[in-house]
Amino acid sequence: MVQAAVMGYGVVGSGVVEVLTGHTDSISKRTKEEIGIKYILDIRDFPDSPFKDKFTKSFDDILNDDEVKVVAEVMGGVNPAYEFTRKCLESGKSVVTSNKELVATKGAELLKIAREHNVNYLFEASVGGGIPIIRPLSQCLAANEVIEIAGILNGTTNFILTKMIRENMSFEDALAMAQRLGYAERNPSADIEGHDAGRKICILASLAYGKHVYPDYVHTQGITGITLEDVAYAASWGGVIKLIGQVKRLEDETLDITVEPMLIEKSSQLANVDDVFNGILVRGDSTGDVVFYGKGAGKLPTASAVVADIMDCVKHLKRRKYLDWSDGDSSVVKPYARTSYPVYIRALSNLSKQEVMKKAADLFVNARAIVRTNAPENEIAFVTDEMMVTEQERAVAALEEAGIQVVSKIRISDL
Amino acid sequence: MVQAAVMGYGVVGSGVVEVLTGHTDSISKRTKEEIGIKYILDIRDFPDSPFKDKFTKSFDDILNDDEVKVVAEVMGGVNPAYEFTRKCLESGKSVVTSNKELVATKGAELLKIAREHNVNYLFEASVGGGIPIIRPLSQCLAANEVIEIAGILNGTTNFILTKMIRENMSFEDALAMAQRLGYAERNPSADIEGHDAGRKICILASLAYGKHVYPDYVHTQGITGITLEDVAYAASWGGVIKLIGQVKRLEDETLDITVEPMLIEKSSQLANVDDVFNGILVRGDSTGDVVFYGKGAGKLPTASAVVADIMDCVKHLKRRKYLDWSDGDSSVVKPYARTSYPVYIRALSNLSKQEVMKKAADLFVNARAIVRTNAPENEIAFVTDEMMVTEQERAVAALEEAGIQVVSKIRISDL
Repeated sequence: MVQAAVMGYGVVGSGVVEVLTGHTDSISKRTKEEIGIKYILDIRDFPDSPFKDKFTKSFDDILNDDEVKVVAEVMGGVNPAYEFTRKCLESGKSVVTSNKELVATKGAELLKIAREHNVNYLFEASVGGGIPIIRPLSQCLAANEVIEIAGILNGTTNFILTKMIRENMSFEDALAMAQRLGYAERNPSADIEGHDAGRKICILASLAYGKHVYPDYVHTQGITGITLEDVAYAASWGGVIKLIGQVKRLEDETLDITVEPMLIEKSSQLANVDDVFNGILVRGDSTGDVVFYGKGAGKLPTASAVVADIMDCVKHLKRRKYLDWSDGDSSVVKPYARTSYPVYIRALSNLSKQEVMKKAADLFVNARAIVRTNAPENEIAFVTDEMMVTEQERAVAALEEAGIQVVSKIRISDL
Repeated sequence: MVQAAVMGYGVVGSGVVEVLTGHTDSISKRTKEEIGIKYILDIRDFPDSPFKDKFTKSFDDILNDDEVKVVAEVMGGVNPAYEFTRKCLESGKSVVTSNKELVATKGAELLKIAREHNVNYLFEASVGGGIPIIRPLSQCLAANEVIEIAGILNGTTNFILTKMIRENMSFEDALAMAQRLGYAERNPSADIEGHDAGRKICILASLAYGKHVYPDYVHTQGITGITLEDVAYAASWGGVIKLIGQVKRLEDETLDITVEPMLIEKSSQLANVDDVFNGILVRGDSTGDVVFYGKGAGKLPTASAVVADIMDCVKHLKRRKYLDWSDGDSSVVKPYARTSYPVYIRALSNLSKQEVMKKAADLFVNARAIVRTNAPENEIAFVTDEMMVTEQERAVAALEEAGIQVVSKIRISDL
């Protein structure tokens, strides 16, 4: 019997306990060991829980109990999760987590501590919920150079965009519906501003390229600026707007990494990933495109990924998994202003369409107008070829000087 | 430096050598060991190969060299691959393979030998080519009960069906095109008769349910009987016809496992897996549906999966991976005749449509007519609710007695 502890009895934590206790037979058959839960750490009381004997409010109970070999940190947030994780690793306990914020901000340091103490720090559940992606990326694709990773990494924003695309629902109404259905939190900013997706692409990038990419280095833009007009233009262009977390290695070895809404073509593998689903595309030099698809969040999917990591720790109690990367600094990342991509622009102007397009043709690379039905007279939209962000901004400024007001500028994906 | 050998220098074998030698740095960084290729076994001569010094025609060179710790068996077929694999495992060498026929027919035995000799027998490349599926299924989904697995497991037949569906191409023309493009072999029967998909679903079922399921136990039907008429009816019903390998555990603990063409609804995650792509859906009790998607075959995708397994063996030289199942017999599988599912029927008759549908309503459960444009007067098609296969056959026989000739009967998927 190997003893584990669960820190945090929220949605994921209670799911972990449910999965661990509900699959005892198959789990012990697969790990060749029974896994017991010795402690559940939470500041709240759960007097009616069938596990009420296991609850503790004191982290030291877990830390000082040498019987506890594996700890599931499912508290979320950086503090006190960071301190607790560090202390557990330092005292020779393996830690598994679903805490993407902690992995994205402290991953390199915690992996180093785990390495120094010959224990494991695993985080399959931190990206994609129940979709296996960390392990396939680190193991199965080991014999590949990863050319690019692009993913729909946040279910809440994908639900909102799907409602806008399919039902012509406004952003505000779709957000309110997501909140009613429990997909979005009362304070939805981590989702809709792109921070959640940003943490996840940082984790994937760190793993794929071997150096920690901190969220601070990543251009992160959410979906609050997306309008139904943009959705309609995307459709007439032949695609959809999705919030994409993307990373690729450039020729100068820096990373082009970003989270932002993108126009993607209907034929792309990510275009049909709808509702609360996540989809992650990994482009390897040998495998070509491999796509992982499923529910990216939710109690039991996420909990089952945490439990799979616990099982892996139990099987590797005296052995480290090769899940690792070193620390990185901002030189890893290409400054966003110097990245290049094609772009979609929507503008308002009292000039004639011909005049606007003539201006656009002068300022942008291969500007082609696109149309939507029932567009007002003063609206015009066009797409361009690849341009550096600074060039785009210069061109936008020049348009505005000419009395043409740019209301939307959205990246066009090359996937 | 760990020495490996490659048995078979065909498409996959030459790819393995290419990937291993082309990614030396990243591979040794990830495995903390260099991996050398000491031998390449092939009966042919390759005088111009840059690896010509490594070729041998004698399996004993590999078997008797204690320096060789890992052997990649990429010969295909059961003989002599079976004997070679057995001898390698018995002499303490780990073996990795892309040989689905061998794993499907001898997997339990070879895994047992590997267990007894404390070495590994890995076969990520045997299903889905470069798509990671074996490892995610065995590890990430470890904390799930697998309710069902369904997959488009054969790229050749999926290419043919896609051409029939999208371009109204006949089966014969689509097959000829697949052969011209190198997707289908000169003798295409293993693909188009469903045997290739059958081996793969056997491997997935054995892994998911812990007992070996032999291809002989599995109802296996290919796509040679699929006509453009059926494709048109499937479209008007709201779906497509795909060759699906499927397994699910029934309440009596037996497996409903089959390979056959199925009508699947357009909204299914598998409906949009087109051309030579594979897609595998795993339904877990905790994760819900997770889908793996990518190119299921091809030199480099398959080779990179083989190399990932070689790397895993090198990292686990003195430790076994928990990839295992025990032997099974036919009692594991529900006899096909006693499985139940809804069905699509197409029939020809000189009776009026009303008369045919009246007969159908008497004989089948909830028979509903479906139509297609330009159907000849004497053709009728309908779909039913779930019925046991023996009941379906009894009903079909009764139709035929009434002068109604059943020309197509295709399973309707519940996915």
